[in-house]
Amino acid sequence: MEKEKIKQLLQSVRDNTMSVEEALESLRRLPYEDIGFAMVDSHRSIRKGFPEVIFCQGKAVSQVVEIAERLAAHNRTIIATRAGKEVSRALESRFDEVFYNELARFVRIGPAPVPSTARRALVVTAGTADLPVAEEAALTAEALGCATDRLFDVGVAGIHRLFGNIQKIHDAGLIIVAAGMDGALPSIIGGIASCPVIAVPTSVGYGASFGGLAALLTMLNSCAPGVLTVNIDNGFGAGYAAAMILHGDKL
Amino acid sequence: MEKEKIKQLLQSVRDNTMSVEEALESLRRLPYEDIGFAMVDSHRSIRKGFPEVIFCQGKAVSQVVEIAERLAAHNRTIIATRAGKEVSRALESRFDEVFYNELARFVRIGPAPVPSTARRALVVTAGTADLPVAEEAALTAEALGCATDRLFDVGVAGIHRLFGNIQKIHDAGLIIVAAGMDGALPSIIGGIASCPVIAVPTSVGYGASFGGLAALLTMLNSCAPGVLTVNIDNGFGAGYAAAMILHGDKL
Amino acid sequence: MEKEKIKQLLQSVRDNTMSVEEALESLRRLPYEDIGFAMVDSHRSIRKGFPEVIFCQGKAVSQVVEIAERLAAHNRTIIATRAGKEVSRALESRFDEVFYNELARFVRIGPAPVPSTARRALVVTAGTADLPVAEEAALTAEALGCATDRLFDVGVAGIHRLFGNIQKIHDAGLIIVAAGMDGALPSIIGGIASCPVIAVPTSVGYGASFGGLAALLTMLNSCAPGVLTVNIDNGFGAGYAAAMILHGDKL
Amino acid sequence: MEKEKIKQLLQSVRDNTMSVEEALESLRRLPYEDIGFAMVDSHRSIRKGFPEVIFCQGKAVSQVVEIAERLAAHNRTIIATRAGKEVSRALESRFDEVFYNELARFVRIGPAPVPSTARRALVVTAGTADLPVAEEAALTAEALGCATDRLFDVGVAGIHRLFGNIQKIHDAGLIIVAAGMDGALPSIIGGIASCPVIAVPTSVGYGASFGGLAALLTMLNSCAPGVLTVNIDNGFGAGYAAAMILHGDKL
Amino acid sequence: MEKEKIKQLLQSVRDNTMSVEEALESLRRLPYEDIGFAMVDSHRSIRKGFPEVIFCQGKAVSQVVEIAERLAAHNRTIIATRAGKEVSRALESRFDEVFYNELARFVRIGPAPVPSTARRALVVTAGTADLPVAEEAALTAEALGCATDRLFDVGVAGIHRLFGNIQKIHDAGLIIVAAGMDGALPSIIGGIASCPVIAVPTSVGYGASFGGLAALLTMLNSCAPGVLTVNIDNGFGAGYAAAMILHGDKL
Amino acid sequence: MEKEKIKQLLQSVRDNTMSVEEALESLRRLPYEDIGFAMVDSHRSIRKGFPEVIFCQGKAVSQVVEIAERLAAHNRTIIATRAGKEVSRALESRFDEVFYNELARFVRIGPAPVPSTARRALVVTAGTADLPVAEEAALTAEALGCATDRLFDVGVAGIHRLFGNIQKIHDAGLIIVAAGMDGALPSIIGGIASCPVIAVPTSVGYGASFGGLAALLTMLNSCAPGVLTVNIDNGFGAGYAAAMILHGDKL
Amino acid sequence: MEKEKIKQLLQSVRDNTMSVEEALESLRRLPYEDIGFAMVDSHRSIRKGFPEVIFCQGKAVSQVVEIAERLAAHNRTIIATRAGKEVSRALESRFDEVFYNELARFVRIGPAPVPSTARRALVVTAGTADLPVAEEAALTAEALGCATDRLFDVGVAGIHRLFGNIQKIHDAGLIIVAAGMDGALPSIIGGIASCPVIAVPTSVGYGASFGGLAALLTMLNSCAPGVLTVNIDNGFGAGYAAAMILHGDKL
Amino acid sequence: MEKEKIKQLLQSVRDNTMSVEEALESLRRLPYEDIGFAMVDSHRSIRKGFPEVIFCQGKAVSQVVEIAERLAAHNRTIIATRAGKEVSRALESRFDEVFYNELARFVRIGPAPVPSTARRALVVTAGTADLPVAEEAALTAEALGCATDRLFDVGVAGIHRLFGNIQKIHDAGLIIVAAGMDGALPSIIGGIASCPVIAVPTSVGYGASFGGLAALLTMLNSCAPGVLTVNIDNGFGAGYAAAMILHGDKL
Repeated sequence: MEKEKIKQLLQSVRDNTMSVEEALESLRRLPYEDIGFAMVDSHRSIRKGFPEVIFCQGKAVSQVVEIAERLAAHNRTIIATRAGKEVSRALESRFDEVFYNELARFVRIGPAPVPSTARRALVVTAGTADLPVAEEAALTAEALGCATDRLFDVGVAGIHRLFGNIQKIHDAGLIIVAAGMDGALPSIIGGIASCPVIAVPTSVGYGASFGGLAALLTMLNSCAPGVLTVNIDNGFGAGYAAAMILHGDKL
Repeated sequence: MEKEKIKQLLQSVRDNTMSVEEALESLRRLPYEDIGFAMVDSHRSIRKGFPEVIFCQGKAVSQVVEIAERLAAHNRTIIATRAGKEVSRALESRFDEVFYNELARFVRIGPAPVPSTARRALVVTAGTADLPVAEEAALTAEALGCATDRLFDVGVAGIHRLFGNIQKIHDAGLIIVAAGMDGALPSIIGGIASCPVIAVPTSVGYGASFGGLAALLTMLNSCAPGVLTVNIDNGFGAGYAAAMILHGDKL
Repeated sequence: MEKEKIKQLLQSVRDNTMSVEEALESLRRLPYEDIGFAMVDSHRSIRKGFPEVIFCQGKAVSQVVEIAERLAAHNRTIIATRAGKEVSRALESRFDEVFYNELARFVRIGPAPVPSTARRALVVTAGTADLPVAEEAALTAEALGCATDRLFDVGVAGIHRLFGNIQKIHDAGLIIVAAGMDGALPSIIGGIASCPVIAVPTSVGYGASFGGLAALLTMLNSCAPGVLTVNIDNGFGAGYAAAMILHGDKL
Repeated sequence: MEKEKIKQLLQSVRDNTMSVEEALESLRRLPYEDIGFAMVDSHRSIRKGFPEVIFCQGKAVSQVVEIAERLAAHNRTIIATRAGKEVSRALESRFDEVFYNELARFVRIGPAPVPSTARRALVVTAGTADLPVAEEAALTAEALGCATDRLFDVGVAGIHRLFGNIQKIHDAGLIIVAAGMDGALPSIIGGIASCPVIAVPTSVGYGASFGGLAALLTMLNSCAPGVLTVNIDNGFGAGYAAAMILHGDKL
Repeated sequence: MEKEKIKQLLQSVRDNTMSVEEALESLRRLPYEDIGFAMVDSHRSIRKGFPEVIFCQGKAVSQVVEIAERLAAHNRTIIATRAGKEVSRALESRFDEVFYNELARFVRIGPAPVPSTARRALVVTAGTADLPVAEEAALTAEALGCATDRLFDVGVAGIHRLFGNIQKIHDAGLIIVAAGMDGALPSIIGGIASCPVIAVPTSVGYGASFGGLAALLTMLNSCAPGVLTVNIDNGFGAGYAAAMILHGDKL
Repeated sequence: MEKEKIKQLLQSVRDNTMSVEEALESLRRLPYEDIGFAMVDSHRSIRKGFPEVIFCQGKAVSQVVEIAERLAAHNRTIIATRAGKEVSRALESRFDEVFYNELARFVRIGPAPVPSTARRALVVTAGTADLPVAEEAALTAEALGCATDRLFDVGVAGIHRLFGNIQKIHDAGLIIVAAGMDGALPSIIGGIASCPVIAVPTSVGYGASFGGLAALLTMLNSCAPGVLTVNIDNGFGAGYAAAMILHGDKL
Repeated sequence: MEKEKIKQLLQSVRDNTMSVEEALESLRRLPYEDIGFAMVDSHRSIRKGFPEVIFCQGKAVSQVVEIAERLAAHNRTIIATRAGKEVSRALESRFDEVFYNELARFVRIGPAPVPSTARRALVVTAGTADLPVAEEAALTAEALGCATDRLFDVGVAGIHRLFGNIQKIHDAGLIIVAAGMDGALPSIIGGIASCPVIAVPTSVGYGASFGGLAALLTMLNSCAPGVLTVNIDNGFGAGYAAAMILHGDKL
Repeated sequence: MEKEKIKQLLQSVRDNTMSVEEALESLRRLPYEDIGFAMVDSHRSIRKGFPEVIFCQGKAVSQVVEIAERLAAHNRTIIATRAGKEVSRALESRFDEVFYNELARFVRIGPAPVPSTARRALVVTAGTADLPVAEEAALTAEALGCATDRLFDVGVAGIHRLFGNIQKIHDAGLIIVAAGMDGALPSIIGGIASCPVIAVPTSVGYGASFGGLAALLTMLNSCAPGVLTVNIDNGFGAGYAAAMILHGDKL
């Protein structure tokens, strides 16, 4: 039952063509889909101005395009994650403003967003191989209206570069740290930062890294309070949560 | 907003003291708690005549008693699972009709239910040590209105007893099989039964049984179709699902 | 010893050419193969009218065809699961009535079954990527004489669509829920449904989903009673068990 | 080299008793301990007004008291987590203002903090058994200057109560969800909330919950973006991170 | 249907009071329990002279005694494994000839068996802590009619003692090796022995031994062919299989 | 120091050109390589007439050929396991008598062995997909001088065929059972056989079979004594151990 | 054959009462036990002056005393690890010079060793709870003739103290780092030290630390080369290996 | 702030254009990047003469070349690990002295190093398939100035070859042992060697070797003290640590 239907029902009560009891019973029997319009407001894309997201992994190119077209009717910006080259090409042939980052396998349809919060996200990696995940996080946060800074390759081997950029740590409103192997970097940063740290374990490594499990466990057990963890290689989730946190002051 | 509130709202529309638009807006803004009354019907205890259940593990005796008293106001039968002796004693001092099975750590408050379906559940164990879990399953199913049969200790060491009771297998409307160690019995029974089999891995075993994990994996990988699995030692869950399945013909 | 042989033995007793003791001893020594004919009745395909099933994974195309031909001699309907395109083509060139669903990799040889029970199975997925598993479940249940409904893509991201279709939940005699990633959907549905729920974890996901293990554990630990679990990606097992449950009223 | 030593060095340069090159070389050779005083500023307790924290697990009562006394010299508020009754008694006999919550095993020494941010944390549990973890989270957040709301026992069995309190979800600046067993609640809440969700798996459960592992994996694989995870039973970590996030607007 | 019943049936055929067809149909309908008597022969205790076994873990003392009494009616020797002191005392007060080994928690009721095969089992341990498991294996093999030799504490730390007793290795008909920690000893012995080796991982160790899992995996991956593995701490299983193998020449 | 060197040393003692003390000291200092010649006797290929074995996995074709040529100098029969087609072709072009079984990826160089023990190995599989592992086991046992019987495809789905061939179970001197998925077959057979059972878990399966881990755990936890386990897919190890056991009577 | 026997054999050759060929044959047939005396030299306690070690866990107090007495006949210093108070008391009543550290559960019998190498071991912990493991490592290294330094409680929470003691890092010949929880400290130290680092994961932690597994995996995956790992809580192993490494210059 | 900046600051103090207090405050506020130059000295490549290392896995060929060029400016020798043929070809076309070992996927740019320590590393493998890992270890140690010996294929199957080369064990200053499957070799060698042993588990194996996990656990649980473990297949890490240990005498 859509808005109009409820309106008619109320009108019928007003018009005395339906008794109060009948109307009550009708409302009571309303399946959720009819009341559902009340839920529209809760859509994040409306309330926060966040774009809609298509997770491309496991979807055919045609499916992605179809979903994108449907979403484009009501959204100014759409992002697509885990998008291969074919996906980006198919979207480029269909939409005007398509931005693609091949490393991060990230697509943005629509204009580049203007940062809507003064607080910035710092995206850090331990090594070069963590870049795809870190970029996915950074591009997601940017697409959701956050300004970002990047500080790459500051793991154990380049830890002097971390300390050499400590001002960036102090300036950040939130730090995303992508690390594979031992996953120790978020603990180190968590120990010196005063803002929340989102730790993203990556599947970078071999042997007893068990596809990122070692890094994941390290991060979950971090001795530094304020470290929060997402799934292995989940750059998107880190960037999305970062944007929610950084926009929090506007609630 | 409860039923009465919506009735008043509708009355106001009827009385012309509220416009249709205002009423629509009020309904639209209804938080879920107000619409919630519509959900009452979905309560299983009402629709199916199933008793309410208290899971005692991790609850203080006083908490269990308090919850039982609250539920007793609206339910004829209440069951409490994972209930130690102290819980049973406390309930006995408070309620008239309390049945307690120490092995299964199972309490039923209220009269013994009369089977409300002609189809029967057969509860089987591989060994003696699986009895507590099997009894929990059987007592749960009985408390939910099912007649049950029992066939215990028919695992590999007593497999001739299984074949010696094959008529019970053929007569059952549903079979619950509790087994630890290798957990192979549900596969064997699943291969010869023509009704669904609910497999309950138990934590019986040592070494590489890893607290029931070995039996659980065996059951999930069963080569016999029709075998469904619940959590390790979850006799209650098996009995509850069995009752739902056996009562299904009344839907 | 086949039927004829036992008949001859009995005839010999009648004819006095064999003493009762000799006959007893002969029967007593009967290895199982000779008594085996007594087991024919227990074949589900005969008792329930269920079709025979070929699990194609790990079998050569020629092996599948050969088995299908052998089964076709005694069965009206045969189903083949995990069947690639080559398998379906080979079967189409050999049998008249071959139905193939590529997404579900499912073949049915023989006429479309007419539902033989009034109770219906509702097949639900959390996401688009769970479709192959869900379709395998639905097609299996249908091939076994059940009518099915489908409700796809109602996971967390589309949960309003779940509540918008709550009548389907209430109408179902049994619900199959396929979900990967966090595998939370069966718990949600189990909390509002009054019929049994068969949860099928899928291998959809990445990182700490560990090939469906995360979803599997979620389902096994479901707080909603009445949730039963099958192996990861085991749509066939879910559909088969569903059919057994839904036909249960005819036992 | 302490502050005084560097001052003397600089004085020597000024006094011409040390060349610029010599001084540079001296500074260059400074081991970290001498430069270390520069790091004092980075202490969160100073920058954010956050209290110091003592993790009592694995520490003797006397050790906890000793640490508390040392910290009390420079801090107005001290909190102690995983504190048994003996710890609280020992602290009560030594300090004036000692608040103890036995359920959460949480001690606060010093005055109750006044919320220093208008944004509120909502602390939610799936079941009664998750309360200790949830209380630890709530008390930590409160001790760090956040106002909190509580919404307990709204898991699958009481999900209508969740929907009945949806306004609390919408009002929260951040939601902490503690859940054991299937750990599905954070996914459900993450799907309807527009603020970040910190998921805390608890070790509540049995069998295949594997001490909270099942809930942990569910949360890491959550399909709802914006869900961040901490270690099993880590209520403190959740509360601490929540406070960092909620105070973020003041940076 | 017992032996007598079939006899009567045959007699009826002979007497012409039952037709051959009727008799055939009766036999055909025989449930397994009636044919079951044919299986008696397969009992190992009869065919091999092996004693019956009671696994005491998880059984009450009274249950063990009851089972022992029942078995004593038909068996000369009975063994009870994982038997605590109370079990042994209860059995001693009931039976005449009771032998108890406290370290191995092993009871034998009945006379000491005389070795019934010339081939001997050599039971080896890596360390002192593996003794209980090794003794359980040795006592089991002895109770099943095998002569045994023992060679204890010849792991890495005492490997010179292994080489100093190499003649024992060469003389053995079968070697049982109990080892915890790294579980490497069966591989070493398997590399120099020419008889089969039964490897028994023990739960001896700490940390990454994970309750015997490390030793178990080592043994399963042994590079020496001829190494067979049983469950962690399963001395009984090793001894039983050893006896079966050593008696094999009498088949 | 080779045989000759020790001879010279002894000769020097005899010749009085070396004192007894000097000779003793020399012998005492003998590194193992010099004493090593004493170990030749322990070679199984010499003592038991077993052929040498080449494990081809991870070796280049040329490496396999080279090793085969070296071994051929001293051995009448050589077997090569995990051998692809290229390996077999390369060996065929080099040796006269080469037997290749593609399914089992097994090569035998040299004449077909004549069984050297009257006791037979029965090789059983649960399903068709377990055939390669079972064949590897059977061919290995045959190459080591054992006669074998085969009983394939008698798992849960075809369990009537197992009971129909029970005489084969009773006739076997040892049974090898290869099974994937739930791995329940060895438990069933172990429960009715009176000879040792070697259980070979196979990696056949999907989802929670975890590459054979489920079957492995089932077998290790078998409730039937006399079941011994080898590594997943280790048909060779099963066949080799079987041959050692069956030849045991000749020791 | 002991030393004397070989001497006699050689004498017989000299005396012409045994031919060279006979003597050769006798030596050739020597089982290992007779040649065994040649291995004495390889005993570390002799070659390196290292004391003998008794691992007390799983041993009765009387067994430990007995072993200690036997070892005392040939060794000046004996150490006993994992020794409870009763063990220390029993040893004190039997030996004169007994040193006991209760925290580390470490006993040394015999005089305090004088450092026999100029290179020092630095023993570091992340937290207070890691102290028992660290002390076991330090006391072991000291008992084996190494001078040690200690640097405790310098994990993430006290990382400024690590940098404040960096000279200790630079002065060490080898660093042992004991850490639980996230186990990140060895990576950090490995990144700045120029000597080898032995990482000891401890079982300190909760939840997803899984008894030290998380810390272990972190250390195995350390991005800093030069980090070597021992078993969880294996302070003894770390100290022993450290002593071997530090004494290496004397080889 | 770079060296120059601090120099200017000191000059300003000298010039009286900045007060001592101001200068102190400036230094105190120095973010790490400005003090960072002090860390240069800690670079191992400078202090130990160790070459810089490029880990090629997950890097594009062009990235490797670029990094190599940058490093070549300041280093005489560079090594690249996990380098495929394309990497080696690209480096050969750019640098003069390029050494490539395809088996070990190891590149050395620059002259072959002359051993700078008299102590030697012995590199041992259990089987042929462990060679790539062992060679990576040996080549790394050689590139870092160590002389190495090799002893390959001395696992259980060839253990007589191990004992035949025991002098090599006794001569080594450190032993690296690479082994897959059961990973038992380091325990055996650790039991007879008097120098430290670095154990490298390899991913060689199948089934329950779980990609090297079995070997890793074996090594961590080694009963022989002095065995230290690195990550699965981490030949580089073993070689690097070996070089640090062997050069230790020069500290």
